[in-house]
Amino acid sequence: MDVGVARDGRSGTVRHGRIGIDVGGTKCLGVLVDDEGSVAAEDRRPTPKGAANLVATVTELAAHLRDRAAGAVTFGVGLPGSITRQGVLTSSPHLPGVVDFDAAGAFTAALGRPVAVANDATCAALAEWLLGGGRGVDDMVMITMGTGIGGGIVAGGHLLLGANGYAGEFGHMMIDPNGRDCPCGQRGCWERYASGSAIALEAMRLAGEGFLDAVVAEAGAAEAITSELVVRAAAAGDVDAATVLDHFARWMATGLANLTNAFDPARFVLGGGLVQAAPVFEPMLRRHVAALVYASNLRPQPEIRFAELGERAGAIGAALFGARHDRERTSASE
Amino acid sequence: MDVGVARDGRSGTVRHGRIGIDVGGTKCLGVLVDDEGSVAAEDRRPTPKGAANLVATVTELAAHLRDRAAGAVTFGVGLPGSITRQGVLTSSPHLPGVVDFDAAGAFTAALGRPVAVANDATCAALAEWLLGGGRGVDDMVMITMGTGIGGGIVAGGHLLLGANGYAGEFGHMMIDPNGRDCPCGQRGCWERYASGSAIALEAMRLAGEGFLDAVVAEAGAAEAITSELVVRAAAAGDVDAATVLDHFARWMATGLANLTNAFDPARFVLGGGLVQAAPVFEPMLRRHVAALVYASNLRPQPEIRFAELGERAGAIGAALFGARHDRERTSASE
Repeated sequence: MDVGVARDGRSGTVRHGRIGIDVGGTKCLGVLVDDEGSVAAEDRRPTPKGAANLVATVTELAAHLRDRAAGAVTFGVGLPGSITRQGVLTSSPHLPGVVDFDAAGAFTAALGRPVAVANDATCAALAEWLLGGGRGVDDMVMITMGTGIGGGIVAGGHLLLGANGYAGEFGHMMIDPNGRDCPCGQRGCWERYASGSAIALEAMRLAGEGFLDAVVAEAGAAEAITSELVVRAAAAGDVDAATVLDHFARWMATGLANLTNAFDPARFVLGGGLVQAAPVFEPMLRRHVAALVYASNLRPQPEIRFAELGERAGAIGAALFGARHDRERTSASE
Repeated sequence: MDVGVARDGRSGTVRHGRIGIDVGGTKCLGVLVDDEGSVAAEDRRPTPKGAANLVATVTELAAHLRDRAAGAVTFGVGLPGSITRQGVLTSSPHLPGVVDFDAAGAFTAALGRPVAVANDATCAALAEWLLGGGRGVDDMVMITMGTGIGGGIVAGGHLLLGANGYAGEFGHMMIDPNGRDCPCGQRGCWERYASGSAIALEAMRLAGEGFLDAVVAEAGAAEAITSELVVRAAAAGDVDAATVLDHFARWMATGLANLTNAFDPARFVLGGGLVQAAPVFEPMLRRHVAALVYASNLRPQPEIRFAELGERAGAIGAALFGARHDRERTSASE
């Protein structure tokens, strides 16, 4: 399905436009999704500080995109953090100072139209399921691999939100009781082992044991190693860097095997910034998943695919979430 | 809701009877569930060896229970092991020699009526959701704690089966990469830490370190310690035995915290043989769950309740599963 930006002339034909805005730690990306699931227009702004400024920025983006649609539009917003089913942001490490914020209420009041709000990874999962790497299956788990790990779940053909709206917080599933401390207060959380920051951490650990000379030299110091440097070195044939990625891939596979036991998905869709490194770690990941999935000789292996919608997945998903919410609201009031 | 066995005279009034049979490692339990969700009749047989004998026993139980219903009946069977969505048993450690067995096909042919087949823990989850400890919520995870750990999931008001029918195999989620070997070939599986056999294992470990003198004396030898002995000693005030159960409760809580991150259930329902020990370990479990759930100060805690249908949960659930399957089949053919 085409998700490229349509030429300017085309946006005038959007009858039932779906506007979605993905609020990230640094930028807000807004899209207008047309009847065919294509992005007819997009716009972005830096993410401002504080709830009041965030409302102003989201409203401005939404109004600007609404002007690009000829007919009625629906609105959805994806936020990074814990979002209740009522659209209240209870906490977000990426939006300092914004806590217990009735985002759906504030956006709705400012726009004068209903705005549905959900977790950004949940939105990305919805978008990839309907328009991206998850098309065609009823049971899909999406994992977003970035600085941390987020996720979203489709099971039995339904997007899962959980009782409170917090389903899919895979990053803090504990996989090592004696493991690394996590800023969340627990230890051994999955995202301390299978995220971008985890790659850097593992590289620093191995550098401390005398490995990774070339990467340390390029970084200037062991403490300055980044996941990007490790990936680039591994791609260029650095054996120590490849070892770091193999450890990352084994931890990622451990989590995927655990989620396979729980959800039995037909497919995993992996997204987030680390997908750029997929050509380097994908063979390692597939090998470890095959070794770690329970009774792997007696069952079909879950497919592993990568996200197809890139950085727009969250915004497109927010648009789809807003449209679903509007349909449910309309049918409930009939 | 009443799930007691109705008096004999009452079974004649069952118009739309739902027959369910739960095949266990040692016995097959059959029930006839009436329109109100009560058990109108029940019967049991020892579980025979081999697929052909199993078909004969299930058919005999089903025919006997059918005679107790006045009107039309539906049939469901719960089996221990991996069951595909088509009702094929692909493997079962509890039914030696029965592999790649088209159970639904064989039971249907023998009875001359459609028989739906599902995993026994999935059936128990369905029963507890509709008639037991899970009533009233749309998001529930059931954990069956016995020799191992099984489970079933209700999310967003839907029973989850997974892409292949294998959802809810929580027992083999890995929670310690350096942990105990598991017969499945992996190590550190949850059921090696939070099951009945795990309680015995942990007690033997602590006995090897010089603890648990009284329990060892009662068992005759450290290797003869059972979970029942440990629970009884802890209930009687034995501090070492209580320590074993505290370790068990912490591991159980670790898994529940992980599942909370994944599913965000409103409620956990704990079932299986270990529920008898709940009065001893429940306070420990609640304390550990509160400490381990991610961001527990920012979210509602999942409720923890215990199963209400006892040993009949699987059979009642099989009956409900068979009736659902029949409705879906009927509506699909209309």
